[in-house]
Amino acid sequence: MPAPLQNDSFLRACLRQPTDHTPIWLMRQAGRYLPEYNATRARAGSFMGLATSPAYATEVTLQPLERFPLDAAILFSDILTVPDAMGLGLSFAIGEGPRFATPVRDEAAVDALAVPDMDKLRYVFDAVRSIRQALNGRVPLIGFSGSPFTLACYMVEGAGSDDYRRIKTMLYARPDLLHRILAINAEAVAQYLNAQIDAGAQAVMLFDSWGGVLADGAFQAFSLAYTARVLAALKRQDADGQPVPCIVFTKGGGQWLEQVAALGPDVIGLDWTTDLGAARARVGDRVALQGNLDPMVLFAGEQAVRAEARRVLDRFGPPAGGGHVFNLGHGISQHTPPDAVSALVDEVHRHSRALRQGA
Amino acid sequence: MPAPLQNDSFLRACLRQPTDHTPIWLMRQAGRYLPEYNATRARAGSFMGLATSPAYATEVTLQPLERFPLDAAILFSDILTVPDAMGLGLSFAIGEGPRFATPVRDEAAVDALAVPDMDKLRYVFDAVRSIRQALNGRVPLIGFSGSPFTLACYMVEGAGSDDYRRIKTMLYARPDLLHRILAINAEAVAQYLNAQIDAGAQAVMLFDSWGGVLADGAFQAFSLAYTARVLAALKRQDADGQPVPCIVFTKGGGQWLEQVAALGPDVIGLDWTTDLGAARARVGDRVALQGNLDPMVLFAGEQAVRAEARRVLDRFGPPAGGGHVFNLGHGISQHTPPDAVSALVDEVHRHSRALRQGA
Repeated sequence: MPAPLQNDSFLRACLRQPTDHTPIWLMRQAGRYLPEYNATRARAGSFMGLATSPAYATEVTLQPLERFPLDAAILFSDILTVPDAMGLGLSFAIGEGPRFATPVRDEAAVDALAVPDMDKLRYVFDAVRSIRQALNGRVPLIGFSGSPFTLACYMVEGAGSDDYRRIKTMLYARPDLLHRILAINAEAVAQYLNAQIDAGAQAVMLFDSWGGVLADGAFQAFSLAYTARVLAALKRQDADGQPVPCIVFTKGGGQWLEQVAALGPDVIGLDWTTDLGAARARVGDRVALQGNLDPMVLFAGEQAVRAEARRVLDRFGPPAGGGHVFNLGHGISQHTPPDAVSALVDEVHRHSRALRQGA
Repeated sequence: MPAPLQNDSFLRACLRQPTDHTPIWLMRQAGRYLPEYNATRARAGSFMGLATSPAYATEVTLQPLERFPLDAAILFSDILTVPDAMGLGLSFAIGEGPRFATPVRDEAAVDALAVPDMDKLRYVFDAVRSIRQALNGRVPLIGFSGSPFTLACYMVEGAGSDDYRRIKTMLYARPDLLHRILAINAEAVAQYLNAQIDAGAQAVMLFDSWGGVLADGAFQAFSLAYTARVLAALKRQDADGQPVPCIVFTKGGGQWLEQVAALGPDVIGLDWTTDLGAARARVGDRVALQGNLDPMVLFAGEQAVRAEARRVLDRFGPPAGGGHVFNLGHGISQHTPPDAVSALVDEVHRHSRALRQGA
């Protein structure tokens, strides 16, 4: 029997219900900019040691909440757990980012691909249960997954890429192969997120981190269509009938907002290139919006942080009806001074309350 | 007395006049994907040896025209010639890209900055004259410059960057310093492009390669405003009264098309994330459009190249009135097979003629 939620501002804003302040959480809020995170990671021995241990994952998930009065927690995990469970051999070379030992580059590799047994991802669901218990109702817990296309990028490229040449060559030369990968990914991601919801995730977020590298047309066929499949298969409420909001974030997807909104997510995440007011005018009657401060603002000192936070809140416009979740437009940089985050959270809470009182 | 122009399809399309086919040229068409370019570069000893020699620049500018029936030539030069002339000490370390010995990071460095004497850039204007002569009226010659903001990125970062942390920190913490850099850059770029026009450039292009990394709001204040200054100071015709079209290309700028169009360029360049038909509906009555094939299509084999080329032409829509310059949405990759370029140029010419006959 989970503890009752003490701060439901994030869930309410996702559902476009009124709140007394604009809730804030930060993508990658449990991460390398926090000395306590680095200490835990050192004890865990490696990033995967951290991510695969429910105890460590719980510890680092809660770290930013001890420092800052954030309005939501997000599961600490890696974006590539699902393809790792497919047997592609994930590793993290020092200073190099993720790498797959057996990337999916030809028909034989695609033939061998299957939706993984979710039991291989039990460590993630155990982490969700453990974090929910540790949170004890303080704030809601967000689960997440990479989108089918974003996972496919890593699976085909085998590592990060600056031009996505391998996956785009497959997309244009052998679209049938990529569609088969994406169909498997969509089914796997839906099962994965539903299992996170079963384990206690109170909202879920789909990170389409690389959808924005696609050409118009290709985005709709190879990213959006599979995000749609995930959404269609997703539980939208928990066992008690509580709604579980779903956030879709396509980095660089500002031109496709209407098309993402048409899939029916509860929230669309925006990077900093899109004006929040314009976005709200385009889709705000259908979905809530999450974002969208440039993470680099956090390097410019407290005065700038506070001014830019106010600017984002002001651009969203009058808060009547709510529907704004404050966030960065991308994950927080590892070099960020933690004091800047304190100023940001304080200003978002302070100014959004002031706006509501002025309204 | 320059030779009369034999193929004016590019200039006509820039000015939204009818053409019998859609003209095509490729960003970075003289480059490392061509074995003959690499041979010339080896003889020149270095990239800067190539770029600073009018004879070599002429040789490599003409190389792609010998292979492919392209409809325009573009000056072979580097995007960082202007800050180099400001004395920042440009160098190219092997495999590392450009680097400035003395980046502009504090008030003293900004104080020391000035519009360079255009005489230091004489090698560029000599190259323009030499290329015009060598072209002998075959196709028009495009001159170019980086935009004030894009130059500032390199000047402040000192090299490439994946997060633009230094320039964005300056932007948010000391906007006054960045505005001073940008004002100098805008004046320098306008003088630079006007001198290229005086030397014989028949069109000019402003590469705002990094404008798309800015937040909405910051883009308008720190990139667009200085593009506007350049456009306002630009000669729009040559000594004979011939119009010299101006192309503005903001990579990742699809959300800001109307605002770019309002500056009054002749042509807006588009990357592949923007649908050409939608762009035309938004701004097509005011400007021509250039683009926008994903350069990665060129790795997918001839059939895919031809199909995607047709798709781009079809998306632009009926050619009545013209106004489409075919291009990639970004520079051609150094790994591109030259045969793919042959197929692309052929298909653009063939299909665009067929479309006109069917219309």
